[in-house]
Amino acid sequence: MPTGLINDFFSRITDAGRSLIGPSAPDLTLLEEALELLGSIGEASSVARARIFLDRYLTASDADRRAFLVDAAERLGPDRAALETAMTRYQKSGSEADARALHFLSEPRSQELIRRLNRAPGGTRDLVAMRNDLLRWQRDEPSLKGLDEDFRHLLASWFNRGFLQIERIDWDTPASTLEKIIRYEAVHLISGWEDLRHRVGAPDRRLYAFFHPAFPGEPLIFVEVALTDRIPEAIGPILVTERPQVDPAQAKTAVFYSISNCQSGLRGINFGNFLIKQVVEELSREFPGLTTFVTLSPVPGLRDWAAGEAANPDGLLTEQQREAVAMLSPADLYMDVEAAAGAAETLGRIAARYLVEAKRLDSLPIDPVARFHLGNGARLERVNLSADLSARGLSNAWGVMVNYLYDLDDIERNHEAYAKTGEVAHAPPVRRLLRQG
Amino acid sequence: MPTGLINDFFSRITDAGRSLIGPSAPDLTLLEEALELLGSIGEASSVARARIFLDRYLTASDADRRAFLVDAAERLGPDRAALETAMTRYQKSGSEADARALHFLSEPRSQELIRRLNRAPGGTRDLVAMRNDLLRWQRDEPSLKGLDEDFRHLLASWFNRGFLQIERIDWDTPASTLEKIIRYEAVHLISGWEDLRHRVGAPDRRLYAFFHPAFPGEPLIFVEVALTDRIPEAIGPILVTERPQVDPAQAKTAVFYSISNCQSGLRGINFGNFLIKQVVEELSREFPGLTTFVTLSPVPGLRDWAAGEAANPDGLLTEQQREAVAMLSPADLYMDVEAAAGAAETLGRIAARYLVEAKRLDSLPIDPVARFHLGNGARLERVNLSADLSARGLSNAWGVMVNYLYDLDDIERNHEAYAKTGEVAHAPPVRRLLRQG
Amino acid sequence: MPTGLINDFFSRITDAGRSLIGPSAPDLTLLEEALELLGSIGEASSVARARIFLDRYLTASDADRRAFLVDAAERLGPDRAALETAMTRYQKSGSEADARALHFLSEPRSQELIRRLNRAPGGTRDLVAMRNDLLRWQRDEPSLKGLDEDFRHLLASWFNRGFLQIERIDWDTPASTLEKIIRYEAVHLISGWEDLRHRVGAPDRRLYAFFHPAFPGEPLIFVEVALTDRIPEAIGPILVTERPQVDPAQAKTAVFYSISNCQSGLRGINFGNFLIKQVVEELSREFPGLTTFVTLSPVPGLRDWAAGEAANPDGLLTEQQREAVAMLSPADLYMDVEAAAGAAETLGRIAARYLVEAKRLDSLPIDPVARFHLGNGARLERVNLSADLSARGLSNAWGVMVNYLYDLDDIERNHEAYAKTGEVAHAPPVRRLLRQG
Amino acid sequence: MPTGLINDFFSRITDAGRSLIGPSAPDLTLLEEALELLGSIGEASSVARARIFLDRYLTASDADRRAFLVDAAERLGPDRAALETAMTRYQKSGSEADARALHFLSEPRSQELIRRLNRAPGGTRDLVAMRNDLLRWQRDEPSLKGLDEDFRHLLASWFNRGFLQIERIDWDTPASTLEKIIRYEAVHLISGWEDLRHRVGAPDRRLYAFFHPAFPGEPLIFVEVALTDRIPEAIGPILVTERPQVDPAQAKTAVFYSISNCQSGLRGINFGNFLIKQVVEELSREFPGLTTFVTLSPVPGLRDWAAGEAANPDGLLTEQQREAVAMLSPADLYMDVEAAAGAAETLGRIAARYLVEAKRLDSLPIDPVARFHLGNGARLERVNLSADLSARGLSNAWGVMVNYLYDLDDIERNHEAYAKTGEVAHAPPVRRLLRQG
Repeated sequence: MPTGLINDFFSRITDAGRSLIGPSAPDLTLLEEALELLGSIGEASSVARARIFLDRYLTASDADRRAFLVDAAERLGPDRAALETAMTRYQKSGSEADARALHFLSEPRSQELIRRLNRAPGGTRDLVAMRNDLLRWQRDEPSLKGLDEDFRHLLASWFNRGFLQIERIDWDTPASTLEKIIRYEAVHLISGWEDLRHRVGAPDRRLYAFFHPAFPGEPLIFVEVALTDRIPEAIGPILVTERPQVDPAQAKTAVFYSISNCQSGLRGINFGNFLIKQVVEELSREFPGLTTFVTLSPVPGLRDWAAGEAANPDGLLTEQQREAVAMLSPADLYMDVEAAAGAAETLGRIAARYLVEAKRLDSLPIDPVARFHLGNGARLERVNLSADLSARGLSNAWGVMVNYLYDLDDIERNHEAYAKTGEVAHAPPVRRLLRQG
Repeated sequence: MPTGLINDFFSRITDAGRSLIGPSAPDLTLLEEALELLGSIGEASSVARARIFLDRYLTASDADRRAFLVDAAERLGPDRAALETAMTRYQKSGSEADARALHFLSEPRSQELIRRLNRAPGGTRDLVAMRNDLLRWQRDEPSLKGLDEDFRHLLASWFNRGFLQIERIDWDTPASTLEKIIRYEAVHLISGWEDLRHRVGAPDRRLYAFFHPAFPGEPLIFVEVALTDRIPEAIGPILVTERPQVDPAQAKTAVFYSISNCQSGLRGINFGNFLIKQVVEELSREFPGLTTFVTLSPVPGLRDWAAGEAANPDGLLTEQQREAVAMLSPADLYMDVEAAAGAAETLGRIAARYLVEAKRLDSLPIDPVARFHLGNGARLERVNLSADLSARGLSNAWGVMVNYLYDLDDIERNHEAYAKTGEVAHAPPVRRLLRQG
Repeated sequence: MPTGLINDFFSRITDAGRSLIGPSAPDLTLLEEALELLGSIGEASSVARARIFLDRYLTASDADRRAFLVDAAERLGPDRAALETAMTRYQKSGSEADARALHFLSEPRSQELIRRLNRAPGGTRDLVAMRNDLLRWQRDEPSLKGLDEDFRHLLASWFNRGFLQIERIDWDTPASTLEKIIRYEAVHLISGWEDLRHRVGAPDRRLYAFFHPAFPGEPLIFVEVALTDRIPEAIGPILVTERPQVDPAQAKTAVFYSISNCQSGLRGINFGNFLIKQVVEELSREFPGLTTFVTLSPVPGLRDWAAGEAANPDGLLTEQQREAVAMLSPADLYMDVEAAAGAAETLGRIAARYLVEAKRLDSLPIDPVARFHLGNGARLERVNLSADLSARGLSNAWGVMVNYLYDLDDIERNHEAYAKTGEVAHAPPVRRLLRQG
Repeated sequence: MPTGLINDFFSRITDAGRSLIGPSAPDLTLLEEALELLGSIGEASSVARARIFLDRYLTASDADRRAFLVDAAERLGPDRAALETAMTRYQKSGSEADARALHFLSEPRSQELIRRLNRAPGGTRDLVAMRNDLLRWQRDEPSLKGLDEDFRHLLASWFNRGFLQIERIDWDTPASTLEKIIRYEAVHLISGWEDLRHRVGAPDRRLYAFFHPAFPGEPLIFVEVALTDRIPEAIGPILVTERPQVDPAQAKTAVFYSISNCQSGLRGINFGNFLIKQVVEELSREFPGLTTFVTLSPVPGLRDWAAGEAANPDGLLTEQQREAVAMLSPADLYMDVEAAAGAAETLGRIAARYLVEAKRLDSLPIDPVARFHLGNGARLERVNLSADLSARGLSNAWGVMVNYLYDLDDIERNHEAYAKTGEVAHAPPVRRLLRQG
């Protein structure tokens, strides 16, 4: 039975429920609506109330939505009376059973709310949108963190890896899905249908995405792959549509040149790790000649970090490097070619230092793209200068891009070292850069 | 990408992980294996360990499996130190944040174990099998209840209604799925492929099932439907394959004559309610002439209950009814036709009393089939004598069957009254039986 | 087994055959290659030769292709000796058996050639391309007519109606098929993907196409439909993407506003008739509120005909009409608005006369679009002035478009009258125009 | 659009046509109905008449159907007047154009009738049934041969190889298709669903079938394959379900142990040749370890031929062989074991002689199974005694079966030699048998 039909069913049951519970009371706040929903015991009326709540939420003003989320965070926590009783009982008995019971009795009511909302037709999709709000406002409203824990916990459960379906996207994919690829590509923008056709349809290009049964036709994350004869040094030759094509059967290298998350409301629920590994497996099987799996990745935080570090004599950069940073304002970069060329020599060293040594308090790298690939067990393979000459590439990282290498024999070991100590696996060329600087 | 391919990926990633962690140590107990799994931090090695654990579990002896489950229940509860800290912090601050934190910090480690096992290829299926063990042994091992809470909680989340797919099963369904229908039919056995063909392929018969994306080709629950011209009084004429067929476009009544749960490891996670309502919707749409949706259901607990009640002068039965019960031993039933006929007159009254008035401590009906349909909001419509003359029908209920009526206009009200007070909705013919008795 | 796989098989068998027959002899003419193919008796070698021949044909120069077709027409006719024998035998016996035998023995060898070519992988498609050549050159090479008879005969057999599959094209259709719709739309050009999305995806727009199993993903013909509240008077409001949309459930009228044949090599093998009727059926079923099925069609031959007729005092036009035609040069049309307005009054009458009364020698209408719809049994419903202000619309027909009405109750009668006598069914408004003129 | 929907369309258009032409006249003969159909010019009425005719034909008595076929053969030949004119014109001009025209003008009207019937919903299927009648009665009614030529010609065109789809049949195939496999297996009967499951579902068994788009769900021909480690000597070990299974990745040999045509009305339109070659390709690709593709085939005509030959001192058998045949009556075969054993020694030689040397007038082998495989280019590889101990095997061929070997490198050469001179390719073991005898 096609999904459309199922949603149809849902809708009609929802309608049935709607007629049972009568007209909704427009003067209720969202929180009051939510409490009604938590109190309803009939199946159909509960589904109908969930749908009504979601409709109201989605059309409410920013202020009302935000107020509701704060209310829910602050007032739909655990049932205090039940919690106290459970604690008392556990403290008396110390038994395993009472310890376990404590967990269930302390469940925030917001979890039950989220579960009930998930039963509405289209509920999962709307909850992802709601979490998007939560993430946006969380910085200003610390109390939202507690509620976000509930969302994260339940979404991670519903979007667990076993339920994801990998699909190849190509020129035979429905246009309705392809237009989402155009919309969601966040790294190297797709300029239109011809550009897209090149990325999904050229014989030496591939695009794979994860889907979830509850989000039909809606990619969660996708990765774009170029099959090449060697590790690429720049993004331009990959993106250009007029170029010599590689016979995929002769290709030696698969380049992951763009990875885009599509659902910001699923932030923190990681699919990318597993997607890359599945694609490595799939490509290995289809093209036994492939020996190297590598990314061509931006270094989004390089320039901001270097600018800060340039002002810090006790930092990771040498004096010469700090001076180079000072010279590398965009104006210089274009106007004084010689000076820029001189500074560029040191750029590779700065980038290596940034990626391998610059760490956050939790001793993980500062660069978010680095954290993603290193966390997957990849190795920093090479630093490429003048690799991304787009406005963004220049402005974020003076055009620097790097390769992360996925070697299935090493990823587990790399991952463990990284997870335990923050150690950044890196290849000899990067080691040389570090030694030079 | 077909499911087979996905499992393939999983398997190869699992194999990769397997080679990383080396040969498994056969002298580890299942609990020790589980602790290794909880401690592993690499993705591939964790998936591989999960698969190794499940393979060992599935091939272990009953005694070892049971020992593991008891161990897990008793030793993989919440982290006590974390729990104590969280309690202290909450008791000091009383804050919402600390109340919410308490819930997350008190999570039994067995939940994380189950989640990790679910990531192995085929993990969901194996966890359902593991829960089946848990349910079998729970009666003798009360400590397993705590662990079962974890299973029930997570399985309910993974098998939530939004992820289920309804499908019509017919003679164009793959044989591999059809043979499972033969195997799982638990109410009115299917005698072979010809019988099956009649049940799924006759124009006035339908069969619908729920599926889950993680269990491809494996029905979770199914319902068999006969389209008839009136509410049926006996099961024989429905099951027989040589019979006059009803033109479905002329049918007035849809009879749910068999509902079978297929996965005993999913007990307590209810799909049936929703399945019936979806099928009502689907049939209404396809055959606008249908006006009545009704079951033909067994009364499995009638005879046991009546036997007990016959010995209880202060019970629900009248003296005459108690005498009738005494006469209705199977021997009599066949040998002394006249006496049996006399006793039979009172059978309907006894059955009505059993279904409407005999209650458990929680004030819900004793009969499990009654609890299911009444809990869905159905109404007890009619009591049918000599309706199921199979050995089981006679032995459980002297051949009595009943109809439960699903009226979409009433199910929500019936359900609420039932849920709040245990009130059993029943139709005038049943009311008359009660008055007579 | 997906089509790709089948073609794979074909290809490998072809390759096997290729190796059997050795390297092809590049000095053979196409006709000599064709004779080799007709002489080959092995299955694989015959398939291989067919593929080799087609590859050579497709890459040959225009001159060589044309020379081959003329050769084939002139030298691959019936086997004269066999024909003479069969004639003699028939003339002697006059028997039914000998009359029947005469037909089979007189089959042109070019038919066997075409059948053998059709067995090559992709053969059907290439034969359609070959027929396209044939049609192009036929005007200058009358001898090609005989060969075209063979093509038409066999293609009509292979593309018979029972093998065609109707499909709705929408925004969920593969992009590879959608781009062909953009390419093949011949009536009202599609300006790009956004325009296409409007035509296939807006709730009040539909597009249906016929496909053939041997041409996967390749439409043969398609029709575009607008659901409206009344019979439209101009094409602009239908094509514009920013417009009020009609709720399809409320629509009264389905407008076939564009019908495009996609394969010029299939000219003369009519699918359009049946496509329109199937779409009428499909839409009637989906939207029971539809009462009117009508086209909005160009009148491509109007202006040319009128220009000729203006010079003919004994023709179908009145003197006033002939003067109006003289005034309606494009320059006037824009520069002398008043005069044009005056002339325009008579335009409707001229158009009506053209469509209803102007006939070819076979007594069918001169206008090809009229022949198509009237031949399907439609009725000329209304003449619309200023209906197509595109350059083509103005240049072909001074902007005139007409509606043809498909009324399922009348099409059979209309069709028969038209087929027998060339009678053009027309509605009262058209009758009034004729009377006025 | 699913096939069901298309048929729906057809049906409704047919119904529309039916209402146009009014009630059918039950007193018309089938021939008169056919003439009405040939005379109708409306599309819908023509489709409706075609359907009406087919319905009448299918429900008519044998006598009426046979009378119609004879009438059609005798009275729906070429239009004599047109034929005469065409002949005169050709004889005068001798031109290529007139020779070609003669072919088209001499087309029997029965061809147009068949084409029109093919446009009715389900027409192709019914025409296949009609041809089945034709084949049955042809022996007694030689005049039917002419009509059969028309059927054969058009069916061969519609069932041309490019339109056939190969599909693997396995345990995931719809039951409705599987039951047809059970029904159509003509060589080694399938005893029920368990037997079927073994043949399609065991890892070392395969079943492939050809389908046609106009016969959805209906196999045209299928072949059963066993993957084994060596060329098999007997059918028993292949058919038995309890047996050691071969790991298909280790198999060396693919055995085609059963080939069944499903549609007797398509007799003479050969698919088997191509099916076997496609399956060879498919298996080679899936299991690169396969080196040998071989049949295990019955020798259905052996015993009848030998019985005749035993009475003919001037025939192909030696005196000793003729005596052995005389001893090998079934009674002896079981009752006098020793004598039978002695006679058996010569059986192999008799079989070799029968297959390699016994020829029809057209110099092709007498045995129909031999003609099929040798005509495909296979080689007679080995004679197996006591290979088929079923009643049929014993009664047709004293239990003898043979292997035909398909070697892709030789089939083209074998085929050509066979086609030209009837030469039977055979392997050294068969040559030895011939020399011994």
